[in-house]
Amino acid sequence: MSNGKAQGGSAEKSQPIGVFDSGIGGLTVVSALRTLLPNESIYYLGDTARLPYGGKSASTVQRYSLEIAAMLLEENAKTVVVACNTASAVALSQLIESVPVPVTGVILPGARAAIAATRSGQVGVIGTRATINSGAYERALRSLDSEIRVTARACPLLVPLIEEGWLERPITDQIIMQYVGPLVDEGIDTLVLGCTHYPLLRKAIARLLGDTITLVDSAQNCASAVRDLLIRENLRAPEANTGSLQVALTDPPDSFLRVAREALQLDVGEVQLRQVTPHTHL
Amino acid sequence: MSNGKAQGGSAEKSQPIGVFDSGIGGLTVVSALRTLLPNESIYYLGDTARLPYGGKSASTVQRYSLEIAAMLLEENAKTVVVACNTASAVALSQLIESVPVPVTGVILPGARAAIAATRSGQVGVIGTRATINSGAYERALRSLDSEIRVTARACPLLVPLIEEGWLERPITDQIIMQYVGPLVDEGIDTLVLGCTHYPLLRKAIARLLGDTITLVDSAQNCASAVRDLLIRENLRAPEANTGSLQVALTDPPDSFLRVAREALQLDVGEVQLRQVTPHTHL
Repeated sequence: MSNGKAQGGSAEKSQPIGVFDSGIGGLTVVSALRTLLPNESIYYLGDTARLPYGGKSASTVQRYSLEIAAMLLEENAKTVVVACNTASAVALSQLIESVPVPVTGVILPGARAAIAATRSGQVGVIGTRATINSGAYERALRSLDSEIRVTARACPLLVPLIEEGWLERPITDQIIMQYVGPLVDEGIDTLVLGCTHYPLLRKAIARLLGDTITLVDSAQNCASAVRDLLIRENLRAPEANTGSLQVALTDPPDSFLRVAREALQLDVGEVQLRQVTPHTHL
Repeated sequence: MSNGKAQGGSAEKSQPIGVFDSGIGGLTVVSALRTLLPNESIYYLGDTARLPYGGKSASTVQRYSLEIAAMLLEENAKTVVVACNTASAVALSQLIESVPVPVTGVILPGARAAIAATRSGQVGVIGTRATINSGAYERALRSLDSEIRVTARACPLLVPLIEEGWLERPITDQIIMQYVGPLVDEGIDTLVLGCTHYPLLRKAIARLLGDTITLVDSAQNCASAVRDLLIRENLRAPEANTGSLQVALTDPPDSFLRVAREALQLDVGEVQLRQVTPHTHL
């Protein structure tokens, strides 16, 4: 999760946390970071010109992730947060190797929280095709507890449903149950929401699954991991700082930004438009 | 639809028809072309590394379309077919201006067929957000008949449903009716399937709407327009030719290629992998 290359000088401390995602879903991580670390500034970059990453090949997602991380370094990011399960699942080791500041993904924090939550040892994971096919959650969960039993399921329709703003509709409930029902039948007691979009469906999923299944939200746990990292690496912004948020996208925002803004009650201010420059990658 | 720049020499006649789409949906146009023009060779390029185009801005779709068209010209395409409603809706005039061979989109052929089909003069159009927001179908329909009444609706969930392979499920029926029901209530007698993916849902849509509403399939009508163009420009391949099909994608194919292959009964052979080279655009 960290490569420990940061220096922790006073200049670095005031630099922003760089956060990226394929699109706007990573704002769930930003929302958690803003609540937990109000005095930190955040520069968020969503690669909306090439989203989604979730159905694409590992090599393409790796190339895109390195290009976007390079753009965050141009913004003086003191640390890079991969607020995208797909990029965390397939590109984290390349990012850690290439990026000269500490890098945090969402997979290991989510796996840790799932291990802490499960009583039965049977954990479910839902995510995009690329995340599930990578087996990254299984590996992370088994590295923490070799006895754990994992059932994973790709749910490619959930992101488009969320982006359509259909958060509380009977059709959405039906699709959730088509995907998650088989996991429930297998006896999971913990479900990892392995995509940064999914916290926007948290209420619907919780209502459908009832109290016996604990939902683990990668956004929340990733934010805690970033806080721990900043303390460990002596990179926390001064207490007196007022954190700011700058959101940049590679394609102008569509209606989903409104959905996310309302659901997260996040003040994203004016959105910057950036074009990816393919030759600047690390 | 055509810029009439082709020469029609005998060398050109054996060159392939270049077809592109944001992904694999444009294979519905290829399938129609193969049936109508079996002696023509086709080079198909799907920009799967950056799909979908349907939710992205006009300027980004224009840039992508020019890059992909340049790659088709490198393959000696004698004509370029924009087998993507979104690219046809927002980038056709730029393509016609920049590409030195005739260019055919899907919008005008679809509009012509809708005008021919409607009795009531009330036409519905469904498509991606970018296609519907562009107003391209309204403009094309009204240029052919200024009295026509058009109701258009963006259906962003249909493409993901098709790509998931859920072509014949109760949930798919419900989502279709949420989108199309209001158009039916307005009294349309003709519905334009304004996205190259949608012919894969034709059976379900026809079953739900019944016999009184005519479905206009942009794939079929685009193929007829290409045939007319080749005859007009003296670009038809010799009768004795056996047409071939080469499919190239910018990201390795996922499970949707199997869905399309089966639904279209199309022999796509071995898929070539091509990387977009952003600096070669026209």
